[in-house]
Amino acid sequence: MRESSVLELARRRKTVRKFLSDPVSLMDVLLALEAACQAPSGANAQPWRFVIVTDPNKKRRIREECEKGERKFYSKVRGELKEWLLSKGFSWKKPFLEEAPILVLVFSEKRAPHSTRSVWLAIGYILLALEELGLGTVTYTPSDPKGVLDEVKAPKENRLEAILPIGVSADEKLKEPRLGVKEVSFLNYWENPIS
Amino acid sequence: MRESSVLELARRRKTVRKFLSDPVSLMDVLLALEAACQAPSGANAQPWRFVIVTDPNKKRRIREECEKGERKFYSKVRGELKEWLLSKGFSWKKPFLEEAPILVLVFSEKRAPHSTRSVWLAIGYILLALEELGLGTVTYTPSDPKGVLDEVKAPKENRLEAILPIGVSADEKLKEPRLGVKEVSFLNYWENPIS
Repeated sequence: MRESSVLELARRRKTVRKFLSDPVSLMDVLLALEAACQAPSGANAQPWRFVIVTDPNKKRRIREECEKGERKFYSKVRGELKEWLLSKGFSWKKPFLEEAPILVLVFSEKRAPHSTRSVWLAIGYILLALEELGLGTVTYTPSDPKGVLDEVKAPKENRLEAILPIGVSADEKLKEPRLGVKEVSFLNYWENPIS
Repeated sequence: MRESSVLELARRRKTVRKFLSDPVSLMDVLLALEAACQAPSGANAQPWRFVIVTDPNKKRRIREECEKGERKFYSKVRGELKEWLLSKGFSWKKPFLEEAPILVLVFSEKRAPHSTRSVWLAIGYILLALEELGLGTVTYTPSDPKGVLDEVKAPKENRLEAILPIGVSADEKLKEPRLGVKEVSFLNYWENPIS
């Protein structure tokens, strides 16, 4: 199917917030989610649930609900995070929620042990699987998920962890630089460098 | 380097709690952690920090500290989780913390935005990279991390997310069964099945 190692996929992958209008195959999305379904989870509870949104009207309403929350968030955010957001050109506008051909809403079952951690581990699987399929995404977490939960009729036992807009990248931004592994790793105890 | 797709790696991978004494190359572990370093994170804060433990004495003390916490946890656990743990043969004993040739302690910087979520996404990358390298692990989360933090001199600004014992599998347990993707996915709204 391909010849890229996990490390190569991880290096190549960058976050994508602009998408071509090219259609995305539902089958491809299901393949990526199937990888997630194979992940480990606390007590093997498999707390992940996915709502795949293809309906343009529903995407538009999800965008509107998310932007409502973002406007409030951006009016309140302060300090380093605010500076970082402004320096990167971010705002309350989330057009990618409407422009991406497919959205995947990722939920966790609140009562499962370590449910959030398990689901984010599985999201790591999804990102690599999408990269392998030539598809881009961003792990967008709404500031206020309430309206989105209503829009897709999610039962209250479930937490919206992220929305993944999925499509072919039209994003020309370069990948943000990363620290190397030896800059964030120690040997046997903290501050002892890997030689 | 290989020819397995992400989905194949995800399907093949199972949790490993018993290890051969075969040595593990530090270089291989660094490759897997390098994949993690390429993951996205909230505000690109890259909140992951790793302590790679190779010293047998330190592994033993980490095991002892973890088992102290587990004894307390197992004396208190109740309900469904207790039943599940007993049915799987789990107890407070964690020999894999001493038997695995290498432990990776995974930390998150508490003050980074979405630090726990970001680090668990990166752990997903690590698991797939280890599988590709022929190495097994389990994402073990200590019930009481205090003693381990002291043992590796971790500053209090960091949270211990998981300990990954890494080695060649000697675990004969089969992979726990998983639900299929269509059992956990809906189209456009909750309970609407993927046809």
